[in-house]
Amino acid sequence: MANIAVLGHGVVGSGVLEVLTSHAASIAKRAKEEIHVKYILDLKEFPGLPYSDRFTKDFNVILNDPEVQIVVEVMGGLHPAYDFVKACLENGKSVVTSNKELVAQKGAELLAIAQANNLNFLFEASVGGGIPIIRPISQCLAANDVTEIAGILNGTTNFILTKMIREQMNFEDALKLAQQLGYAERNPSADVEGLDACRKICILASLAFGTHVYPDSVYTEGITKITLQDVDFADVWGGVIKLIGSVKKLENGQVHIMVCPMFVHRGSQLASVDDVFNGIMVRGDATGDVVFYGKGAGKLPTASAVVADVIDCVKHFKARKYLFWEDAKPNYVADFGSMETSAFVRVSAKDSDTALNTAADVFGKITPLLAKRPVQGEAGFTVENLTEKELSDKLAALEARGVKVEGRIRISDY
Amino acid sequence: MANIAVLGHGVVGSGVLEVLTSHAASIAKRAKEEIHVKYILDLKEFPGLPYSDRFTKDFNVILNDPEVQIVVEVMGGLHPAYDFVKACLENGKSVVTSNKELVAQKGAELLAIAQANNLNFLFEASVGGGIPIIRPISQCLAANDVTEIAGILNGTTNFILTKMIREQMNFEDALKLAQQLGYAERNPSADVEGLDACRKICILASLAFGTHVYPDSVYTEGITKITLQDVDFADVWGGVIKLIGSVKKLENGQVHIMVCPMFVHRGSQLASVDDVFNGIMVRGDATGDVVFYGKGAGKLPTASAVVADVIDCVKHFKARKYLFWEDAKPNYVADFGSMETSAFVRVSAKDSDTALNTAADVFGKITPLLAKRPVQGEAGFTVENLTEKELSDKLAALEARGVKVEGRIRISDY
Repeated sequence: MANIAVLGHGVVGSGVLEVLTSHAASIAKRAKEEIHVKYILDLKEFPGLPYSDRFTKDFNVILNDPEVQIVVEVMGGLHPAYDFVKACLENGKSVVTSNKELVAQKGAELLAIAQANNLNFLFEASVGGGIPIIRPISQCLAANDVTEIAGILNGTTNFILTKMIREQMNFEDALKLAQQLGYAERNPSADVEGLDACRKICILASLAFGTHVYPDSVYTEGITKITLQDVDFADVWGGVIKLIGSVKKLENGQVHIMVCPMFVHRGSQLASVDDVFNGIMVRGDATGDVVFYGKGAGKLPTASAVVADVIDCVKHFKARKYLFWEDAKPNYVADFGSMETSAFVRVSAKDSDTALNTAADVFGKITPLLAKRPVQGEAGFTVENLTEKELSDKLAALEARGVKVEGRIRISDY
Repeated sequence: MANIAVLGHGVVGSGVLEVLTSHAASIAKRAKEEIHVKYILDLKEFPGLPYSDRFTKDFNVILNDPEVQIVVEVMGGLHPAYDFVKACLENGKSVVTSNKELVAQKGAELLAIAQANNLNFLFEASVGGGIPIIRPISQCLAANDVTEIAGILNGTTNFILTKMIREQMNFEDALKLAQQLGYAERNPSADVEGLDACRKICILASLAFGTHVYPDSVYTEGITKITLQDVDFADVWGGVIKLIGSVKKLENGQVHIMVCPMFVHRGSQLASVDDVFNGIMVRGDATGDVVFYGKGAGKLPTASAVVADVIDCVKHFKARKYLFWEDAKPNYVADFGSMETSAFVRVSAKDSDTALNTAADVFGKITPLLAKRPVQGEAGFTVENLTEKELSDKLAALEARGVKVEGRIRISDY
């Protein structure tokens, strides 16, 4: 019998208990021994549950019990999760977590501690919820050099964008609906400003390329400025707007990593990832593009990913999994301004001809897009193959010449 | 150093050598030791290669060399592949294969021999080429009951259907093009008649539900009868025609398994899987729908999946992977005639009104579909929620009343 402890009895934590109970027989068969939850750490009281007697408010009870071999951290947030996880790894307990903030901020350090102590630190549930992605990247693609990863990594923003695209709902209304349905939190900024997607692409980048990328080194832009005009122009262009987290290995060894809304062509596998679903494309030199699709969040999908990691832990008490990456190094993330980009730009002036003519003058070459529902003075166009810095400079030049930049959305090539 | 032998130096075999050479350093790092190809078995001569000196024509050289710990079987076909693999497993060598015919026909037996000898028998490359699917099903979804799998499992037929849908090319021309491009063999029957897809859904069904399903127990229908009229009707209905292999666990413990062309709704993740790509949906009770997408065949994708298995083998010499299923049992595959179905039917009579009126009379309730390019005397309609036997009986009744059944395509609910 393997004894485990669960830190946190929130949505995911209670889901873990539910999955372990409802699938007990098949899990025991796969893990080759029974998995027993000895403790659940939570500050709240949960009377009336079949396992109410196993709650504790004292982390040290868990830490000091040598019978507990695996600790599941599903509290979320950095503190005290980080302190607890670190203490567990230093005290001979393997850790499974769904906490993307923890992995994105402290992954390299915790993996090093796990390695030094011959323990596992697993986090399949931290990216893509129930979609298997961490394990496929680290194992199945072992004989393959990953060159690029791009994905729709946040279900909340994808739900909002889908409502804007499909039902012409504006951003504010779509956000309110997402909050009503429980997809968005009351303070939605981590989702809509792109931070959640940023943490996830940091984890995937660190895993695929072996060097930790911290969220604060990543250019991150959310979807709060996206309007229905932009959605219309994307449609005319031939695609949809998606919030994309992407990372690409450059020939000089650096990585180009960013999170931003992008125009995605209708034919792309990512274009049809709708509602709260996630889709992650992994581009390999041998495999070509492989795409993983599914529910990126939710109680049971996330809990089942956590439990799959627990099973793997039980089976590998003495054979460490080879998840590992090194800590960040200077100049590893390429200078964002020097990266090449293509973009859609929406501008306004006293009339749309003036706007477009000035833009053509400033950019040299632009491709105007027809407006579906023309707005007086507005125009939209695309520009190709310039650097981020050139794009910013030229947009500033446009403003200096009296043309207002209403929006700017990058164009993806997947 | 781990010594391996490769049986067969065809497309996949030469790809395995290429991947092992081009990724030698990263593979050694992941496997934690160098992987050395000691022998390549092939009856042909391959002079001028950097590894020409390692070829042998005598399988016994490999079988009797105790240094060879892993044998990679990429010959294809049942004989002598089966005999060689069996001999290897009985003589202490783990086996990695890309041979779907072998796994579909002999999987249960070979897995049992591997288990008895504490060896690995791995076959990630047998389904979905470079798409990780065997490992995710067996590992990541361990804490999840798979209830259904449905997929586009054959790239050749998907290429042909895509040409028919996108370019209104007829079946014969699309097949010829596929042959010219090397996607289809000169004798294309294993692809176009559905047998290849059948082998793959048998492997997935066996793995997901733990009991071997042999290809000859699966209702299998190919795409040779699909016409551009059918493609048009699917478009009017709101979708596309795809060759789908599917298996579903029934409440009574049986499985409903089949391979046939199906109408797939445009909104489905499977509808946008085009050209030679594969897409596989795994439905789980906790995860919901997870879809895996990528190139289902090709030299390097398949070879990289084989090599990933080899790496896994090297890392698990003493810890067997838990791939396993039992042999087939009677009455496990549900009687096909009693399965519920919905279908599109295309009929002809002296005029389309007669055809539709007779159909309405025979079926009770039909939903006529408008023809995009009407053909004199023809009509198309859908029927819902009847058994396969009822559908056959009613189609026979239609014929008996002078209405010719031109085509019948099932309707999917994914």
